[in-house]
Amino acid sequence: MAAAPNGKAEDRRSAFLGVYDRLKADLLQDPAFDFTEDSKNWVDRMLDYNVPGGKLNRRLSVIDSYQLLNGGKELTAEEYFDASVLGWCIEWLQAYFLVLDDIMDESHTRRGQPCWFRIPKVGMIAVNDGIVLRNHIPRMLNKQFKGRPYYADLLDLFNEVEFQTTQGQMLDLITTLDKEHNLNKYSLPVYRRIVTYKTAFYSFYLPVACALLLMGESLDKHLDVKNILIEMGVYFQVQDDYLDCYGDPKVIGKIGTDIEDYKCSWLVVKALERANEHQKKILYENYGNTDSEKVAKVKALYNELGLQNVFLEYERESYAQLILSIEAQPSKPMQEVLKSFLGKIYKRQK
Amino acid sequence: MAAAPNGKAEDRRSAFLGVYDRLKADLLQDPAFDFTEDSKNWVDRMLDYNVPGGKLNRRLSVIDSYQLLNGGKELTAEEYFDASVLGWCIEWLQAYFLVLDDIMDESHTRRGQPCWFRIPKVGMIAVNDGIVLRNHIPRMLNKQFKGRPYYADLLDLFNEVEFQTTQGQMLDLITTLDKEHNLNKYSLPVYRRIVTYKTAFYSFYLPVACALLLMGESLDKHLDVKNILIEMGVYFQVQDDYLDCYGDPKVIGKIGTDIEDYKCSWLVVKALERANEHQKKILYENYGNTDSEKVAKVKALYNELGLQNVFLEYERESYAQLILSIEAQPSKPMQEVLKSFLGKIYKRQK
Repeated sequence: MAAAPNGKAEDRRSAFLGVYDRLKADLLQDPAFDFTEDSKNWVDRMLDYNVPGGKLNRRLSVIDSYQLLNGGKELTAEEYFDASVLGWCIEWLQAYFLVLDDIMDESHTRRGQPCWFRIPKVGMIAVNDGIVLRNHIPRMLNKQFKGRPYYADLLDLFNEVEFQTTQGQMLDLITTLDKEHNLNKYSLPVYRRIVTYKTAFYSFYLPVACALLLMGESLDKHLDVKNILIEMGVYFQVQDDYLDCYGDPKVIGKIGTDIEDYKCSWLVVKALERANEHQKKILYENYGNTDSEKVAKVKALYNELGLQNVFLEYERESYAQLILSIEAQPSKPMQEVLKSFLGKIYKRQK
Repeated sequence: MAAAPNGKAEDRRSAFLGVYDRLKADLLQDPAFDFTEDSKNWVDRMLDYNVPGGKLNRRLSVIDSYQLLNGGKELTAEEYFDASVLGWCIEWLQAYFLVLDDIMDESHTRRGQPCWFRIPKVGMIAVNDGIVLRNHIPRMLNKQFKGRPYYADLLDLFNEVEFQTTQGQMLDLITTLDKEHNLNKYSLPVYRRIVTYKTAFYSFYLPVACALLLMGESLDKHLDVKNILIEMGVYFQVQDDYLDCYGDPKVIGKIGTDIEDYKCSWLVVKALERANEHQKKILYENYGNTDSEKVAKVKALYNELGLQNVFLEYERESYAQLILSIEAQPSKPMQEVLKSFLGKIYKRQK
């Protein structure tokens, strides 16, 4: 096994991708299944199409967090590999959610290419492919961690976080996909609940929880850390919603369609809070429609309500509040982990 | 906790359904998620629609197997509850597979009612509901078994069997859903591989493996038992395929459509093995089409090739072979378990 890569971001990224190749090779010779050439080729292609293309940054945070919790010491090659496997498990989890979300949302593109289920030979097989991605996670955990004292805790953690995410997705679907298009349902508590469960647990809590388990820590003792990470996850999603409307499409890599899609976005929730009766009427009449004139009316109303400033104020306050909570943490290395995470997303443009 | 129910099949069935109510109540107050009234009602309705309606017989076999392995002694109320939870976990697994399979196969009815995704308010939310069903399993295992010495083995077992099933489903999909309709691909080894992974592991091996873990046994020591159960699973699926064409629709509760659906059925595989060039041409031209004249031509060919007798011969031989393997088992209680399982399916009409 090569030494743990340190130094430049590029080296770290390419080392992390090297671990992907090894994990994929293991999965394609899993003794629990008698692969045919056809099924091996299918899984190989499906993985390459759906797993490695993400931003990866957040997932590298298992490695970063582990190193910081370890007092900043260089990781050994074995420690680096352990953390990378868990980082990849989170990427696999993300890929599984995205493949299935795209089917449910009838999306067309993802990460600059057609959604997997839009590939002609794939179609509804994508439902099973999503499930296969999900099933790879315990296979990887079993191969790498079976026999370690924290093995059952690791399985429990992934199971609990996945459960929370699917419940968040359910909340989102039964709120947003309501055919009757009733904006009355959208409010800040509803928004927070969806975002907390659908995004924050798996994107923010899970990587740090993985690092804590690698350190031999009990997760029950870190409920404060969990709450801080959930708050960070909510803040991250608010940014996402803001960028969907106000970000530069060239920078964020897509043209936002939250207004068209009737999304329970932070912007529409804030607009509803601030709108008078006349302005509410405009929202009710124009939100959730692909007609570009209607979309323009919603955007004009957002501007009229000063939502850009509302967002900047929210961002300032969230950041200050998060820093306060982080500095109240007794452990210095944990403070480092949380600040490093926050530093990666504060005032992000994409 | 009430005493373990013994005696009449009706009492046992109703006790088992009582455990369902309790498990559902626990899931609807899972502390890992902050349920709203809407989401609670959704899950409640979704569970009642999809989980308890199956035949249950096979799943009751966790309880039966546990009792037989326990030397036939009555189970205590606690032991009965443990086995019932595992039996229900298998029902949940089945429900999860069926909800998603129906979407992928574009089916219309299941267990005499519309498929879940066909309910107007449900639609593609059914994809997430399938995932929610799947996620309930580790929640139930965690609540009931965390801390037991075999807890991690139980999670591993469910993970491995689910992985095998989804790989079997993949094989089936990439073989059957091939738009080019090429019967060349269908053969007995292909058929066996699909059936083994897609059905036999979770329907036949899993219940007995659960009972073995409850007994504190290591699964690695029971590979012979696994092989026998897989063989039984294959035999069960062959029966299913036979009944799809030759069973009484009033008894089996549905009208078979394997021919129309271009299924890799045991019948078409046997027909291909026995057909001359002319007969093969008939199959190639008529298999996989909803036109009733074409379906009739395929059925006429099956009769011409004497497939009913081929099946009866297969059934006789399989049974004899299975009994031989079972009687070679060193453990008498395990022989009982396997014979009881086989007795439930031999010469079944539905």
